[in-house]
Amino acid sequence: MIKLFRGVALLWIICTWLLPLSGRAQGDPLPSWNDGYAKEAIIRFVTAVTTEHSAQYVPPEDRIATFDNDGTLWAEKPVVQEMFVMYRINQMVMQHPALRNKQPFKAIIDRDKKFLKNMGRKELLELMDLTHTGMTEADFRKVALQFFESVRHPVLNVPIAQLVYQPQVELLNYLRYNQFKTFICSGGTAEFMRTISWQYYGIPPEQVIGSSFRYQYVDSAGVNDIIRLKGLSTLNDKKEKPVNIQYYIGKRPILACGNVGGGGDIYMLRFCQGNTYPSLQLLIHHDDDDREFAYEEDDNLSLNWAHQYGWNVISIKNDWQVVFVR
Amino acid sequence: MIKLFRGVALLWIICTWLLPLSGRAQGDPLPSWNDGYAKEAIIRFVTAVTTEHSAQYVPPEDRIATFDNDGTLWAEKPVVQEMFVMYRINQMVMQHPALRNKQPFKAIIDRDKKFLKNMGRKELLELMDLTHTGMTEADFRKVALQFFESVRHPVLNVPIAQLVYQPQVELLNYLRYNQFKTFICSGGTAEFMRTISWQYYGIPPEQVIGSSFRYQYVDSAGVNDIIRLKGLSTLNDKKEKPVNIQYYIGKRPILACGNVGGGGDIYMLRFCQGNTYPSLQLLIHHDDDDREFAYEEDDNLSLNWAHQYGWNVISIKNDWQVVFVR
Repeated sequence: MIKLFRGVALLWIICTWLLPLSGRAQGDPLPSWNDGYAKEAIIRFVTAVTTEHSAQYVPPEDRIATFDNDGTLWAEKPVVQEMFVMYRINQMVMQHPALRNKQPFKAIIDRDKKFLKNMGRKELLELMDLTHTGMTEADFRKVALQFFESVRHPVLNVPIAQLVYQPQVELLNYLRYNQFKTFICSGGTAEFMRTISWQYYGIPPEQVIGSSFRYQYVDSAGVNDIIRLKGLSTLNDKKEKPVNIQYYIGKRPILACGNVGGGGDIYMLRFCQGNTYPSLQLLIHHDDDDREFAYEEDDNLSLNWAHQYGWNVISIKNDWQVVFVR
Repeated sequence: MIKLFRGVALLWIICTWLLPLSGRAQGDPLPSWNDGYAKEAIIRFVTAVTTEHSAQYVPPEDRIATFDNDGTLWAEKPVVQEMFVMYRINQMVMQHPALRNKQPFKAIIDRDKKFLKNMGRKELLELMDLTHTGMTEADFRKVALQFFESVRHPVLNVPIAQLVYQPQVELLNYLRYNQFKTFICSGGTAEFMRTISWQYYGIPPEQVIGSSFRYQYVDSAGVNDIIRLKGLSTLNDKKEKPVNIQYYIGKRPILACGNVGGGGDIYMLRFCQGNTYPSLQLLIHHDDDDREFAYEEDDNLSLNWAHQYGWNVISIKNDWQVVFVR
């Protein structure tokens, strides 16, 4: 009899241990979100698409969610990749002091506002080339890792890892827990984001869609690697986002999340909304100058579209109890 | 007592049902593979990289496997996508009978060998444009699905689904069972392969890397879709395979599998071999004229590289007990 009870107990332990692998209820999946319309809309949507035999049910393989990164998953004032450009400029000058008196190095180190303000799109892209290309993929990864390990935010004085929004980490986890596949689809370059996507967001590199440089594969003279060439092969912003989602994923997301800022996410949200499955669009509104940075768009485009198309606007001020991860 | 036994039985059933979700031993994972060096090499490699605390251990998130498709996962005599081109030409002529007397429609319907033989690369790409572009992504998907549901192989007289190699389906399953993420990286166009990748191979669309047309996103006049434009944005062959693996996955595979045919996979295998983790390269050799199609390369390049770099050559004749799925 005791043996039998032991058997039952053992089976019970095994079952309990295995249980998290199968479906079950969860407590509050979004504890850093305040109760309100946004949180409610998210939970209602996720519940509907994961409830079998409901009219809204979406099979797991089609539960694709795409997230912008800058201003959506982490703060973008300043844009982290711009901080990386400055870091690289300083690093290059330290390695080759003669660069100190050449432009654009001189202007950046001297913080020459007039010079920097006059830089056009062409000069900015050249600055990207200068700091991101002419090396192997393996070398770029090393440099990017050094940056993330050493640099702090100029205003908030925290490591880059702490620019990540805690409510969004919870949202990503909640979605994955419900068998969503979570992707980044952002304007930053893919390899830059891939350096930390797994560590910061639990998103593997192969689920990161970004801008990219032109690449060349070389297998000779001891090098077996990708060489980064000058010039972008894609600038993953605005209408390029749906195009790249098609290239990389081959299906529409059922959930897309972007932010008010440069109007870069509106087409991704529209593309999501064109899904034949039920879908959810989320737009982060940076309206909290105390805890984060408050800003909008001059033409108000993203908020106008949100109103016109019925997207869910998330107010950082009202919807997020906590902003940053600790 | 009976109640207790019932409880035990119930728990036992639950446990047995949940068991496949957790780790466990497996019988012969590759029953359609003959015992021999190739099968042994695969199993030895997979065991090594999944054994924790072994020097060869690779964490699950880095267990990336990339497979060519034509001649590697399904037969390529003729290439299935060429069959689709013929299907489309016939379909277009049926819809617009006037095309019957225009080239290249006329030549293809009349099987004008001289005309077809004289087609260069430019004409072939134009033929691809003609049959694959000028429609929305949703419309292309419909046409491709119709093709897969209706066409049979001209020699083997079986549906396309039965051109898939049974041993490779087992290999894909075996790898995924061991937490590998399996990708297609092939010369066919991505959306064509994505139509059936899940059904035929258990590979979701977002893990299919292929050639692609140029795309444009349109959101107006009732259309919210990707429009396929003329011209390829990438031809995913030879040195473009490592480049596209970098774009799509952002890390090197630890296992890559290609085939002897057009020398298209050698750089993908070299890129894999440059991994800092242990890696395995597999090259299918089409040497079985009885059960499949026997062919090699004029310059013997793939087999020469396999010899030079120590890749595992898989003989269809000797290593595969069964060739096609039933």
